[in-house]
Amino acid sequence: MVQYIGIQDVIEVLRTLGTERVLQELAKYIEDDFRRWEDFDKVARIASGSPNGVIELMPISDGRQFAFKYVNGHPCNTNAGKLTVTAFGVLADVASGYPLLLSEMTLTTALRTAATSALAARYLARPDSRTMALIGAGAQAEFQVLAFKTMTGIEKVRVFDVDPSASARFARNLATVPGIHVHVTQSVDEGLQDADIITTATAAKKHAVVLTRSQVRPGTHINAIGGDCPGKTELDREILHASRVVVEYPPQSRVEGEIQQVDPGFPVVELWRIIAGLEVGRRAVDEVTLFDSVGFALEDFSTLRFLRDITQEIGAVRTIDLVPDVADPRDLYSLLRRDGVLAA
Amino acid sequence: MVQYIGIQDVIEVLRTLGTERVLQELAKYIEDDFRRWEDFDKVARIASGSPNGVIELMPISDGRQFAFKYVNGHPCNTNAGKLTVTAFGVLADVASGYPLLLSEMTLTTALRTAATSALAARYLARPDSRTMALIGAGAQAEFQVLAFKTMTGIEKVRVFDVDPSASARFARNLATVPGIHVHVTQSVDEGLQDADIITTATAAKKHAVVLTRSQVRPGTHINAIGGDCPGKTELDREILHASRVVVEYPPQSRVEGEIQQVDPGFPVVELWRIIAGLEVGRRAVDEVTLFDSVGFALEDFSTLRFLRDITQEIGAVRTIDLVPDVADPRDLYSLLRRDGVLAA
Repeated sequence: MVQYIGIQDVIEVLRTLGTERVLQELAKYIEDDFRRWEDFDKVARIASGSPNGVIELMPISDGRQFAFKYVNGHPCNTNAGKLTVTAFGVLADVASGYPLLLSEMTLTTALRTAATSALAARYLARPDSRTMALIGAGAQAEFQVLAFKTMTGIEKVRVFDVDPSASARFARNLATVPGIHVHVTQSVDEGLQDADIITTATAAKKHAVVLTRSQVRPGTHINAIGGDCPGKTELDREILHASRVVVEYPPQSRVEGEIQQVDPGFPVVELWRIIAGLEVGRRAVDEVTLFDSVGFALEDFSTLRFLRDITQEIGAVRTIDLVPDVADPRDLYSLLRRDGVLAA
Repeated sequence: MVQYIGIQDVIEVLRTLGTERVLQELAKYIEDDFRRWEDFDKVARIASGSPNGVIELMPISDGRQFAFKYVNGHPCNTNAGKLTVTAFGVLADVASGYPLLLSEMTLTTALRTAATSALAARYLARPDSRTMALIGAGAQAEFQVLAFKTMTGIEKVRVFDVDPSASARFARNLATVPGIHVHVTQSVDEGLQDADIITTATAAKKHAVVLTRSQVRPGTHINAIGGDCPGKTELDREILHASRVVVEYPPQSRVEGEIQQVDPGFPVVELWRIIAGLEVGRRAVDEVTLFDSVGFALEDFSTLRFLRDITQEIGAVRTIDLVPDVADPRDLYSLLRRDGVLAA
């Protein structure tokens, strides 16, 4: 039998541990896997494009476990009341090739993206950062804030979205969360006031500029999660030239990230090298750091590992009959005989 | 909600329709899709290899639906009582990117391989073929025979396996099937006696020769399904030079099929062109035809379409919460609020 984790199971995990502790634990799995970066076989992702969007398969393996995520990106889905991104993933045993776990990943992708953002910020933002500007209050907004609150000590969030109802929903959702104060603002400039960390998470299509060089104060950490596919960016390219730019996996980031705007030789630092202690994160108090995040298969691998462990720990393991269980592996036909299926 | 088809659901379909009718119906879906071959975006498969085996993702799309199959191949799994091949697949809506159906495909891969073999034989074997030699009585053996019985009129099967217990199991499994007579034989030569069709389906590792040129009578159709990965073949290469060789998808077959033994320019006929009426199948009564089958993503696409339709038709639709259902697609966090998850 294969373990199955659906939406209800993820919610059960969140209910049992609390969302903030889930984000912390998940970040530890991601950190551990980034630290052993060189153990991973980083296979190219497969993208199947269409006029409305893209469907991608993102595989990765460490030689013991293989994981892949199915994820789509369809910006216009919201017009039809659908999510722009849905995802699910599978963890498998490399030695036997058997799938071990199938899990929803729409909700957990938001969790892992937030955990990864906050993890990177722990190495890149000034330790005294308390105020975050949030530009774009979409599906990932609340998760980002909870991760930054619990992992980096953010106390105040100044949010701006071109759609006031999105900011209002965001403020309402976080109103009951202790220790975080949300200020809804009317412009990007108002949102940026006193910002130690700027998170850009707009659904900007094409090459938008939601933030310019002159709006960024020295010492800021920018967490750019909105630009994540070819032809979609949200930062003024001058910001890149003025920042220490950190990415997950350069071959992918140069195609999908903010750095698609600059030369292929543009200098970047790989996050795993900072986590592994091979390079420093922030070099000076007044340096601008930029985590140009596009989301990488390793983070999904870590998330599946975490989900498998935590559901077993709290005793919330469901299984599905995705793989047959036969007494003699050469006798697949016995499944029919056993269950009384007639041949004719 | 996403539809889920597990082992039990496939068995329910087989119980309701009968295995032979399932094979016939499935073959129609495969035939229809091969006929519109040029509608498909045939993406390269991703393989992740390891010392024990390989895990592959096989995607394909016709611009309206996207499908992929996860499949492993681990020849030594039988030593541990495990299947050498397990598989599952997903059908998705290209317009929205949403997954529609998740299905087991270990059992259905055996069904679709059998349906494809018999479909090809309808175009390639002599219409008066009644006797099949089956070399190798592994996991796929019974399914092959049922498909050839119901789709091409095979009445007699002469089976040979190096493991007598495999032949015995095969004979036992088919003993109650009306209209098919199984003869267990002690050698390949004895198995080949009077054969109109030869199916080779051994688990031969490396380059084995289970059949030589001189053993093949004029007018025979060879259904070669055992050689299906690089470095694994089961036919004497001289047979290739003496046959009209038909393949599914040349770029894949030249790497994985029997034709990996010959030059890249070796002439082959594509099965879809025969099905679409662009080329003839068998050209003469005494011609030797050879279907060098490795299994192609299109056949899995057809299988998922068939399973979706048939389970809806017989009212056997189960769903799983693999994708969240939210009132406002920008408000993913509402899932937590709705279910009373505390943030802290």
